[in-house]
Parts: sequence; C-alpha cells; structure tokens
Amino acid sequence: MSYSQEDTICAIATAQGGAIGVIRVSGSHAIAYTSSIFRPIKAGKKLEDCQPYSLTYGSIINEEGELVDEVMVSLYKSPHSYTGEDSTEIACHGSSYILQQVIQLLIKQGCRLAQPGEYTQRAFLNGKMDLSQAEAVADLIAASSAATHRLAMNQMRGGFSQKLTELRDELLKFTALIELELDFSDHEDIEFADRTELQSLASHIEQVIAHLVDSFEVGNAIKHGVPVAIIGETNAGKSTLLNALLGEERAIVSEISGTTRDVIEDTINIQGITFRFIDTAGIRQTTDEIESMGIERTFQKIDQASIVLWMLDATCAVRQYIELEAQILPLCKDKQLILVYNKEDLSADLPTPTAGCQHIAISAKKGSHLDELRQLLVQCAHLPEITQADVIVTNARHYEALTHALEAIRRVQQGMDMNISGDFLAQDIRECIHHLSDIVGEVTTDNTLQFIFKHFCVGK
Amino acid sequence: MSYSQEDTICAIATAQGGAIGVIRVSGSHAIAYTSSIFRPIKAGKKLEDCQPYSLTYGSIINEEGELVDEVMVSLYKSPHSYTGEDSTEIACHGSSYILQQVIQLLIKQGCRLAQPGEYTQRAFLNGKMDLSQAEAVADLIAASSAATHRLAMNQMRGGFSQKLTELRDELLKFTALIELELDFSDHEDIEFADRTELQSLASHIEQVIAHLVDSFEVGNAIKHGVPVAIIGETNAGKSTLLNALLGEERAIVSEISGTTRDVIEDTINIQGITFRFIDTAGIRQTTDEIESMGIERTFQKIDQASIVLWMLDATCAVRQYIELEAQILPLCKDKQLILVYNKEDLSADLPTPTAGCQHIAISAKKGSHLDELRQLLVQCAHLPEITQADVIVTNARHYEALTHALEAIRRVQQGMDMNISGDFLAQDIRECIHHLSDIVGEVTTDNTLQFIFKHFCVGK
Repeated sequence: MSYSQEDTICAIATAQGGAIGVIRVSGSHAIAYTSSIFRPIKAGKKLEDCQPYSLTYGSIINEEGELVDEVMVSLYKSPHSYTGEDSTEIACHGSSYILQQVIQLLIKQGCRLAQPGEYTQRAFLNGKMDLSQAEAVADLIAASSAATHRLAMNQMRGGFSQKLTELRDELLKFTALIELELDFSDHEDIEFADRTELQSLASHIEQVIAHLVDSFEVGNAIKHGVPVAIIGETNAGKSTLLNALLGEERAIVSEISGTTRDVIEDTINIQGITFRFIDTAGIRQTTDEIESMGIERTFQKIDQASIVLWMLDATCAVRQYIELEAQILPLCKDKQLILVYNKEDLSADLPTPTAGCQHIAISAKKGSHLDELRQLLVQCAHLPEITQADVIVTNARHYEALTHALEAIRRVQQGMDMNISGDFLAQDIRECIHHLSDIVGEVTTDNTLQFIFKHFCVGK
Repeated sequence: MSYSQEDTICAIATAQGGAIGVIRVSGSHAIAYTSSIFRPIKAGKKLEDCQPYSLTYGSIINEEGELVDEVMVSLYKSPHSYTGEDSTEIACHGSSYILQQVIQLLIKQGCRLAQPGEYTQRAFLNGKMDLSQAEAVADLIAASSAATHRLAMNQMRGGFSQKLTELRDELLKFTALIELELDFSDHEDIEFADRTELQSLASHIEQVIAHLVDSFEVGNAIKHGVPVAIIGETNAGKSTLLNALLGEERAIVSEISGTTRDVIEDTINIQGITFRFIDTAGIRQTTDEIESMGIERTFQKIDQASIVLWMLDATCAVRQYIELEAQILPLCKDKQLILVYNKEDLSADLPTPTAGCQHIAISAKKGSHLDELRQLLVQCAHLPEITQADVIVTNARHYEALTHALEAIRRVQQGMDMNISGDFLAQDIRECIHHLSDIVGEVTTDNTLQFIFKHFCVGK
C-alpha cells in the first residue's frame, strides 16, 4: 500500500511515559492545521505569522472549547525542516491521554497518521538526505554502544555516500577512458598507452569495493554482536554458563517449558564489544527425532559463529573430547575455538590442552574464572577500533548491492584481460554504477522504499 | 537531603525508546553550558546571541571533537521559561546512548543531574505557579481518562487555588468584622448589628470548605478508581470473575505461587469510569492462621470499598447467603452491595433475590452476562459528570489541610455561639487561613516540598 506524499501527516515522536511528549506535524497544511487547534498565550498572535525556527507558547483547545494542554509549538518552514516540508512540533505534558487527544484533534483537522519512518522517507524524497543516510537514522536511534553509534553517525553524515560518490567518479573517469579507446579503435596501429592506466584504475576500484564488502563482517559483528556458539554434550553446563554470563536467568525459561532444545539467543557487552550468544541443544546420541533435529541445528549454528565455546565436563573431559573431535574440529577450522573445562571444582585432574586450541577451566555454577573467560572472548573477537572517519558496511542491503558491484567490476577486469571490445566493457561498468547508485537511492523502486522504512519507528 | 537552587540542572525529559529524545537544562549557566558542547550549523552563530523562544540547529561535539548528534536547541531566557530560569532544551535522536552521552557532557561542563520534580519545584520556588498547581503537573502527566485529565487541568490552571483565594478573602473580611467588633467592645451598650453578618459569613465559609472536603471522595474515586471488593466463599469464582473482567490472566500468578491469600488490586475502565478491584481471600472456617488473617483482611477491605460484589455459587447460593449474611450485611450498610450468582449455567433453579439487594446471575468461567454486570457497576458508581470548571479535591495532602481548616472554622462558629471574645475567634481564623495557605504553598516547609516532588518523574 502506498501513501500520498501530499497528505499532511502527524505522529507522536516520543516514547510513552516521559515528562514531555512531542507530536510532529509535517506537510503543506502543517502550520494551518496546528494553528486551528492552538491558541497562543499572547492575544492576537497567530501561528501562521510566526518566524521559522521560533517557539510559541499557548493552549491546545478541543472542539468543545476545553483546554487539552498548555504546550510549546516549534515552527519550521519549507525547505528548512527535517522533512523539507512545512512542519510543527507540539511539546505537550507527557501524558498518553493528552497526546492521544491532540493527535485526534489533528486528524479531525485533516492530518493523516504517519507511517513508520515516513518523516525520514519524506526527507529522502525531498532531497534532504540520500537513502543510505536515511537508513542510518534508524541505526543511529538503535545504537547502543560507542562503536555502533560511530558507524551510524558516519553513515548519516554522508561518509559512506561520499565514498560511493568517489567510486562513481572513478568509474566515470573509466568510462571516459573507454570512450577514448573506442575513438582510437579505428587506428589499430596506434599503441594504447592508456590500457595500463585503465587496468590500474579498474584494479583500484575493485580493491575499494572489495574492501567495503569485507568490512561487512566487522560491521555486522559491531551492529549485531560477535556471534558465539556454546556447544557441548548434554549437561556440560551450557545453559548455566550462558546464564552466568548474562547475569540473569533468561535461559531458565526453557527448563520450565520442558524444552532445552530451542536455540536461545542473547547478547552481552564486554568492554564495549557486543557478543551474541547462541545457546544450542546438547549433543548426544539420541533416537528422539526432534532432539536429533536440534543437534543438527547445533552443527549449523557453528557455521554462523565467529567464536565457538566447546564446553567439556572437567570430570570426563578427555572422553567427551575424543567422542566429538572428529565432528567438531573440521567445523571450527576458520573459527576461534575455545575449550571450556567446566566443573573445575569437581576435578583435581584437568586434561592437558589439545594442541592449538585456546582453553580455560571454569565453574559455571560457582562463577569462578568467568572474568578470565570474558577476557579471552574479547581477545578472540579481533574487532578493530572504529573512528567516525571509518567507512564500514553494516547494512545487508548495501552489502548485497556492493557484492553485485564487485562482480560487475571483476567482469570488467576479466574483459580487459581477454581484450573484449569497449562496448561490452561499458555494459558492465554501467551495471557497477547502477548498484552503487542503488545504495544512495538514485535508482530505487517503491518496494525498496517500503521495505526500508517499515522498520523505522512511527514519528521518525 | 537538600539540593542547591543555584546549580544548573539537566535531565532527560522523555521516555526511553522514541524517535526524539529531549534533554532539559535549567539554571543560570544553562545557556553557557549548552553552548560549550554545541556547534550551530551556521558558522559564526553563537547560542548566547540567539533570541529567546528560538530554535537553533547544530551539532553536539564531545571532548575528542567527535560528533555525538545533530540536534535542535530551544532557548529560553529568565523569567520566561518553565522554571523561570535561563533554560535550553536539546532535541536529539531518541537513542539512549546519545542521550547518555549528552548528559555526561553537560555534567562535565558543570551541570548537576536534576532530582525528580526539580524543574517543577523550581517553577514553584520562582513563583511561576503555586504549590497546588505544581502538584497538578504530576497528576496531569498521570491522567489516563477524560475525568482525571479535567480535574488535573483545572487544578494546574489555578482553579483550585482561585477557590482557596476566594475563601481567604472571605476570611479576611471576617477578620475585618471581628476587629470592628473589638473596636466597639468598649461600648457594651451598643448593639452589634454585624453579628448576624459575621455568623452568616462563617456559615458560608464552613459550607464551601465542607463541600470541598466532601468532594474528595468523588475526586479520589475518579483519580484512583471506584473501589470494588469482590468477596465470597472459597471457590465461588472470585478470581475467575476478576480475570474475566480484566480480560487478562493477572490473578493467575497467585495460583502458581500457591497463595490465593494475597490481596491483588487491579483496575479497569468501563465507560470512562475507573474501577479498582480488590480481590480478596475466600471466606471459610479455617484453623490456618495465615488464612484466618487473610479473611480478617477481607472484612477490612469491605470497609474501603464503595461497591461490594458478593459472589455466591448458584448451585448452593441459599446456604452460602444464610451462613454469611450476619457477618457481611452490617459491613455493607452504606455501600452498594451486588449479589452475584455465579455458575448460572450449573443451576436451573436460581435463588430468589434478597430484599433490597441488587443481584445478577452470571457465569464467570463462560463469560456470560458480564456486560450486564459491567452496566450494573457503572450504575452503582454514582459518579457525577465532571467539567473543567468543577473544583474537586483529589490530593490527600489538600484533603488533610482542608479537614483542619474545616475544624478551625467550626470552632469559630461554636465560639460565636458561645459568645467568646473576638481575640479567641481571631486565633482560630488564623489557623484556618494557615491551612488554606499550606495548600498553595505559602507556608510550606522543606520537608513538605521534598515529599511532594520526590513522586515526580525526573525531567519534570
């Protein structure tokens, strides 16, 4: 379903429960609609006559002439507002009842309730920001750590868009060179001095895009957390460890419901790094079909993890290790594998560490050596320090577009190696440009926009 | 603990989780502190030079020179602000991380975190509103129905204070007459023509105060809900009915924990009237000491209720009624008693209603005839329609002060009847004035202020 850009929209932009609640109104009638329910405290004053970027104190009055609230109205005039349209913001007392009343009055005047993200979508459509900047607004609001904040802020400020613009300028230069080549193609005897330049340019562009594509793993780990799988035999203490690390009894829910088979995900923050824990079903020989599926999923989960914590019961760690190493070690080849000997208090005789593996002895139940384990996790996370100048891809949509752009530029490189004609090269270059443009929203369809903005909160 | 009024204070004034988050700064350094972390988008512009009631767009910059957020700053100058002090409001993206960062930067500049209600307390101390108006701000924010909103709004707008001022003017007139009487007291032979006037004035003041005191029952019912006690024998279906009315499984918690003995309170809204349900322990002969205490509390709860729902099992309602009528009926003398025959589906032969009692047959489990029961509750609530012009006491502190004022004015009336001297009358009149002044905060102690404002949210 598509909504008209012509409508004047309104929404509560603050969460329920604060001292202040703010209602946003945007669109060509924003000031008129607000004015019709608003009585400035200064007699004779009219909202329509107020300066942009001004605050006016007054009352919201309902149709019965009753006072709904005393409010402060901020006034913005097109194009100098968040959306680029005429806008007002009504700061009320933070009562849900009052906010609902004001929204209802605005709707009676002719406003429509805003869709999630519609303010930002309008800002994009009115050229106030490009699409990747608009997407960063949602990331910025969701940012919960210094690193996620820096990435979102850089993207919102256009750092990412600027990088893409640079790439496009390079590609245009490339196109110019191709055309130069085509101009000279009639004179086959002329040596192409610029073929080398072309190749070095393509190689440079390929490197930059590949670097951006690679940054997604880091970006994703920062944004969603470094994925950590906790695996091991039934009763090795996986849930106990997860609970101890989370400092809460979250996984205990599974005990009540009778299933420890479900995969529970939870995140913790250690020294500014977010870890996303994947609690998995216990591994054991079983004929229970559902449980077998759970174990199958456990092995799949290893594939998604960067760090694998293999829990071994210290009282029988050698047996447990030998029984599963053939299955587990190959899955952990490119991962950080940490052997965790649990129940250290129950065994004086801990097994000697297996070659090449990190290892640590703990008691999940008693909470001993958990700080050392946390330290080990931070070491294994291998996350770089992020500054606001770093351009790192955190968005799956951007990652996909960049992957396509990378394929296109690599086809260009192969084409040049194979000496194919400039016409064909130009086609791949255009495709590369298309995918880069897709990220900033220059070639975006309505469907893409709907997909992007439906994940926003209402009021943004 | 008392906090300095000289400090510049800051607080997040919006709830966590919205699109926008607002930080309030107030005090003599509010503009300077905000300016020191804020860089207007327009180069060369300074926050200090901006007009009051203006909005300035720009960036919050941290000590490392990093961008924390792009924000809109509202500027207010003393005395034209909520607190009466220089103030700013910083509208950020609604990220907890960002809001925390901005608060920390402000604190590093010299701000102190505001105490709950400190903004409103300063507004009171700076003469922007009297104490009863300040108290109404918290009520206004908590208002969840048209009626509570109207009462709070009237109080915040000073309707209540105005009523009290009128009373005080009357009392001053009274004092003037007393003094006139004293002037003439040397001439014992002169007849006091104004004695009748004095008495009619005292009677008028007594009536107005008594009316306000009486309004507290209605005010309290509107603000906290009409108290409804559900009583009956164990297994009569009290919890089932409560759950059915609440439309949720709230009381079920008690089943898990093994105690249905605790008193659970919950509210519902029927046709704009709030009902506060008091679920009680089942009544039966028991030797269990804890359960006996629960039954004792059930009987106490009847006293607090305006409406009593006595649940009777339709299959044995006559026996249940006869066993308990001697205990229950006396307790319900001044209440609305409704006999609820539950499990109507299990009994074709419902007992004939007891004389004088409202009654209804329902099935709590099947949800039948619950709408009729709701309708009956509304009828029994006897709440008047409230307009914004009505002065109704909703605050327990005001109720207490008014009760004392009423006692004082009644002593004045008795004194006049007993012909005691004007000197003594004057003392009681002063006490009456004192209690009325206490409500608007003219004679209020620090302790009272602390008690009042600690119930506010931070940021208000």
